[in-house]
Amino acid sequence: MNDSRSRVGFIGLGIMGSRMAANLARAGHELTVWNRTVEKAEAWVAEHGGIVAESPAAVGAASDVVISMVVDGAQVEQVLTGAGGVIEGAASDCLCVDMSTIAPGDTRRIGARLAEAGVRMLDAPVTGSSPRAEAGTLTIMAGGAPEDFALAEPLLRVMGDLVVHVGELGQGEVLKLINNAVAAVNATAVGEGMLLADAAGIDLKDFQRVLASGSAGSAMVDLKAKPMREHDYTPLFKLDHMLKDVRLCLEEAQAVGSPFESAGHAREVLAAAAGRGFGEQDFAALIEALEGYAGRRL
Amino acid sequence: MNDSRSRVGFIGLGIMGSRMAANLARAGHELTVWNRTVEKAEAWVAEHGGIVAESPAAVGAASDVVISMVVDGAQVEQVLTGAGGVIEGAASDCLCVDMSTIAPGDTRRIGARLAEAGVRMLDAPVTGSSPRAEAGTLTIMAGGAPEDFALAEPLLRVMGDLVVHVGELGQGEVLKLINNAVAAVNATAVGEGMLLADAAGIDLKDFQRVLASGSAGSAMVDLKAKPMREHDYTPLFKLDHMLKDVRLCLEEAQAVGSPFESAGHAREVLAAAAGRGFGEQDFAALIEALEGYAGRRL
Amino acid sequence: MNDSRSRVGFIGLGIMGSRMAANLARAGHELTVWNRTVEKAEAWVAEHGGIVAESPAAVGAASDVVISMVVDGAQVEQVLTGAGGVIEGAASDCLCVDMSTIAPGDTRRIGARLAEAGVRMLDAPVTGSSPRAEAGTLTIMAGGAPEDFALAEPLLRVMGDLVVHVGELGQGEVLKLINNAVAAVNATAVGEGMLLADAAGIDLKDFQRVLASGSAGSAMVDLKAKPMREHDYTPLFKLDHMLKDVRLCLEEAQAVGSPFESAGHAREVLAAAAGRGFGEQDFAALIEALEGYAGRRL
Amino acid sequence: MNDSRSRVGFIGLGIMGSRMAANLARAGHELTVWNRTVEKAEAWVAEHGGIVAESPAAVGAASDVVISMVVDGAQVEQVLTGAGGVIEGAASDCLCVDMSTIAPGDTRRIGARLAEAGVRMLDAPVTGSSPRAEAGTLTIMAGGAPEDFALAEPLLRVMGDLVVHVGELGQGEVLKLINNAVAAVNATAVGEGMLLADAAGIDLKDFQRVLASGSAGSAMVDLKAKPMREHDYTPLFKLDHMLKDVRLCLEEAQAVGSPFESAGHAREVLAAAAGRGFGEQDFAALIEALEGYAGRRL
Repeated sequence: MNDSRSRVGFIGLGIMGSRMAANLARAGHELTVWNRTVEKAEAWVAEHGGIVAESPAAVGAASDVVISMVVDGAQVEQVLTGAGGVIEGAASDCLCVDMSTIAPGDTRRIGARLAEAGVRMLDAPVTGSSPRAEAGTLTIMAGGAPEDFALAEPLLRVMGDLVVHVGELGQGEVLKLINNAVAAVNATAVGEGMLLADAAGIDLKDFQRVLASGSAGSAMVDLKAKPMREHDYTPLFKLDHMLKDVRLCLEEAQAVGSPFESAGHAREVLAAAAGRGFGEQDFAALIEALEGYAGRRL
Repeated sequence: MNDSRSRVGFIGLGIMGSRMAANLARAGHELTVWNRTVEKAEAWVAEHGGIVAESPAAVGAASDVVISMVVDGAQVEQVLTGAGGVIEGAASDCLCVDMSTIAPGDTRRIGARLAEAGVRMLDAPVTGSSPRAEAGTLTIMAGGAPEDFALAEPLLRVMGDLVVHVGELGQGEVLKLINNAVAAVNATAVGEGMLLADAAGIDLKDFQRVLASGSAGSAMVDLKAKPMREHDYTPLFKLDHMLKDVRLCLEEAQAVGSPFESAGHAREVLAAAAGRGFGEQDFAALIEALEGYAGRRL
Repeated sequence: MNDSRSRVGFIGLGIMGSRMAANLARAGHELTVWNRTVEKAEAWVAEHGGIVAESPAAVGAASDVVISMVVDGAQVEQVLTGAGGVIEGAASDCLCVDMSTIAPGDTRRIGARLAEAGVRMLDAPVTGSSPRAEAGTLTIMAGGAPEDFALAEPLLRVMGDLVVHVGELGQGEVLKLINNAVAAVNATAVGEGMLLADAAGIDLKDFQRVLASGSAGSAMVDLKAKPMREHDYTPLFKLDHMLKDVRLCLEEAQAVGSPFESAGHAREVLAAAAGRGFGEQDFAALIEALEGYAGRRL
Repeated sequence: MNDSRSRVGFIGLGIMGSRMAANLARAGHELTVWNRTVEKAEAWVAEHGGIVAESPAAVGAASDVVISMVVDGAQVEQVLTGAGGVIEGAASDCLCVDMSTIAPGDTRRIGARLAEAGVRMLDAPVTGSSPRAEAGTLTIMAGGAPEDFALAEPLLRVMGDLVVHVGELGQGEVLKLINNAVAAVNATAVGEGMLLADAAGIDLKDFQRVLASGSAGSAMVDLKAKPMREHDYTPLFKLDHMLKDVRLCLEEAQAVGSPFESAGHAREVLAAAAGRGFGEQDFAALIEALEGYAGRRL
């Protein structure tokens, strides 16, 4: 099978998925798409071409490769192996490429269920925000059989500029969870450092400029120091989602006995912020829990 | 007093100091220098011009501005206010610019002692390694009176490309400690994340590439992931020095009641690594403590 | 309904359950019992009287109150609401008293399922080891409707000497989880304190005597200091079970945004010990993870 | 030298010292005493007999054994080796028994200074509150040479009912610091557990009764659960003192590379409470920091 002739399906046209699919369309793929809210699918096709399918099963029937980009494990399970799911329409050599961020255990269970029907699966979660999805410069970490990765790779390279095959099915999700846990730790340290700098009378813009320039520099300094000090929690990545990912990462760590104390602390801070009602806000709102702990506002 | 006519002294010609002073010489300053090991001072003058002074006091007598770049608070105290120190030779409007990393409390105490003799003081610690010292692109965070910063700023800009006045005497040191504590946290998270990735069967070069590209990216991923996975602890910044800085940062945090749990954890990891005998190695050796905790080597 | 005339069933005659049921028998109750391994049930009846039922459903049919004391949520679900479970035989005013330690969420879900069939439920987990089960001096913390507690209380008082109604269905389990999490923290602190005392050259028997006598005294000092220093992990309470309880407690804490950092740390230590293969040993084996972290044996 | 004939001095007649000295007087010792506030010394002698000395040096001159019970390392240093201190009056075989809680490093330094003058030293800090001081039932942990302990032991047994020789000079203090750090951890866990129990709707008196009865039982449950839930911080042991002890314990742990993460967390909680202005209150006020973190009051 040659990728240039693959029939490609896409399920999930949200903020990320619509941009990722658009890049595939621009690269010449005519997609069969499905979205829970059908109006979004119709609008997408009006702009980018392709066909709106009636169900995930219909996407499966019309595609050699089905990409999914939905919200959580329950949705992935529904669209791939649930009633009316891809599994009901897919030919036996169909490849499902799930790019959602879900628990590795869910990925493995769904993959096993698909395998019973002869359908193959790759997990390929991404890092990068919507501008990078738009630009086709996401980072994509994939888990699954080498031949499945080889098949999907040309499609993935249209959506991302760093595409890495990191191991077996589920390992893409494991690395994604670790990535987010490390990000959460870095963001927590930025928040704690800001609280101390502020208590010492240091201007927080100076704090950011200095930290960003050296050994303490991080994406989190660049992205979250400003929203934290301005208490602006416009959601780019929801605190509840970050909390869920850190929790899942700790479950993975516990399963293999790997200590991850720094992520354990980040979880506590995120949970305390969620408990104050900031779960639907951006995870920069973790500063609220730290301020409460310190008894002092920035 | 105009900077272009200032007479400048420099105390401490080690790895960092010799490169910083060289930039001042290249900018046209003829320096009066002193170094504990006199041969180093003589070699430096042979290459860069200037005069070797007999003592810190002699540097003080010959200079309007005296820059110091030594190892710890005890050395700063010795060269500035000890027997034969700058204080014994300096005119009453002399300005001491200490660029060493020491405890803010030591800075304040030394500054108060100098003030009794009419000598002024600025703390101006730096971040950045020896290549950045060589290139004159250090980050410099200064604490002290505005007029003292104004006087020193042209000299500081020769040595650094980000020069920030962050507050009163000692606050430069506070920000430096916070910077290093945040770096230590980020490095700990990288180590913990690597241990989990490795347990999950993920290649550690992939780990680094993926994390570096997104929200978990940090200077510590770029600089320490490789030495950690290779167990190469060639000292760029000694673990004992990092441990000291994190400890001092926690003292500052405790003094104002600002919680910094993530740095508290980093301290434990660093201390456990020091206890295993890695204090003189690079702080990437913190991975040794994490490996011991996990009961597993990378 | 009067307790003295209640017909009582008992499901689960393991180390704890067999002793608890024996106290009920000694108090004059003729029990209808069921155990997964039927031989145990027969041996118990041979000693204590009563009747062996064919199934949990048969226990339900023969009882006004059914007590269960099994291993985990899956077993509780099986014997109460699964195929052949109590729900299939119970009259509509039957009361299930589950004394197992399971997730509060499982308790609530099982209780809701029972309620659909008109069967009531109380959760009443215990603290105390087998000698206290034998002596009828357990601590019992119950959750459920006041009238259900009132009905069960005389039976509970036969098995325990501290019997407390702590709230609604599931809250008994919540308090049990908190109890175990606090115990895990206390045990971790004992282990960490011993490691430091040992490093300082202090005899560990002296350590125990001194700590037990004052403000640092705890059940964990009394019960676990000796097994830790002797590396004797004969299982009284398995490390995997303690780890599970601490994890469930943290899930409860996260759900309400209540920070429990000390338990988060205990979880990491327990998980690292489990990862070294000590999950089936007593949780005193957490000292193994701490020793690995320190790079030093007691 | 026979203890019954030893001449005994006592320095520091505060809440603890006055009661400890009184027990010595009741046992037949005529004490030479000194107190910073001379009125207290005179009042004590009026009640218990003995002689008020003009200075610590005069106590030293009149005594074979000098017991000190003062507030901190600076005071110990002052009364033993400062101007007018015991060292100036003591005969060369005099034994100083310091029962204050201070940093082990201070003890060792003071002991070395005394040794230069031929004066011996034992550290013998205590655990137990003023009622136990009154009753002569303190726990006393002593560090020093065996012959010095043998000499002091009969006196110590008048003041305490558990008297343990735990090693060399300073090790009594080390064990005392560990004791207090473990107590601080246990108290923190009680506070965190209470916050969660409260969020779950569990009555906090029930919480205390249940925890006290089993594996989570501790002196801290018995002593601090009530003040925490009542927000009654009448100082029995000041939060600032507990914070100081935990900090010193962590310094000892760091020096030998022994991880003590649970105490690290307790320190953060105590520091955050101190930062809110509760340093002079009882350390039960740590609940204030936890409440702030959770954003919820008990």
